[in-house]
Amino acid sequence: MENNNIQKNCSKESNGFPCFIPAQRVLNLISKKWSIQIIHLLGGEKIYRYNDLREKLQQGWKRDKISDATLSARLSQLVKEGLILREVYPELPPRVEYTLSKKGINLSKALVPLIDWTVSVCHEKL
Amino acid sequence: MENNNIQKNCSKESNGFPCFIPAQRVLNLISKKWSIQIIHLLGGEKIYRYNDLREKLQQGWKRDKISDATLSARLSQLVKEGLILREVYPELPPRVEYTLSKKGINLSKALVPLIDWTVSVCHEKL
Repeated sequence: MENNNIQKNCSKESNGFPCFIPAQRVLNLISKKWSIQIIHLLGGEKIYRYNDLREKLQQGWKRDKISDATLSARLSQLVKEGLILREVYPELPPRVEYTLSKKGINLSKALVPLIDWTVSVCHEKL
Repeated sequence: MENNNIQKNCSKESNGFPCFIPAQRVLNLISKKWSIQIIHLLGGEKIYRYNDLREKLQQGWKRDKISDATLSARLSQLVKEGLILREVYPELPPRVEYTLSKKGINLSKALVPLIDWTVSVCHEKL
């Protein structure tokens, strides 16, 4: 019911369509390689330092390596979209930590059925 | 619990990561313009003929027109991915109807939280 009210009040909603413009932008971002893995890793309100995040991604996805350029780019995009928070602690060497924002936590929850669906599709094809 | 079993049995699963390869492919497809609108329109097990589908998309999204080339391409991709069924009736002129497959219906349900989330994000920005 609450969502119906939101849709009704939304100026981007038209003829029963919810506003898909932000959906397309976010979907475009999360469909990029490594985005889901990063959101999945940070899910459950975990905090990761850059190197730990990279190491964890390498461990979990052995047949494919994430480059520093890609990980940095993806993290910047997720930070820019307000899904991930980047905290810098002025130490030597500087400590940089990543967590999901409140928006990112909500997105990670909203992605669960989609991930479950894709896992079940993968299973069907074995 | 059932999903955990699926993940455990899936050869593409590694170190606690569900298999993201099909996720990336599907996300890449649904992030393409008009995909979500088409899946959303066909949701609730509706049947659409090509022209009705095009007309409904035009009505619902007045500021942007979908071209025949784009709609045809998107429908073919969704059919190829097994999300949409295309039924041709040998009449004159031939009648072509589109519905969601069982897989597509499950995807449309799995997309509901994501669409709700994006609608709420849109609302926040008003």
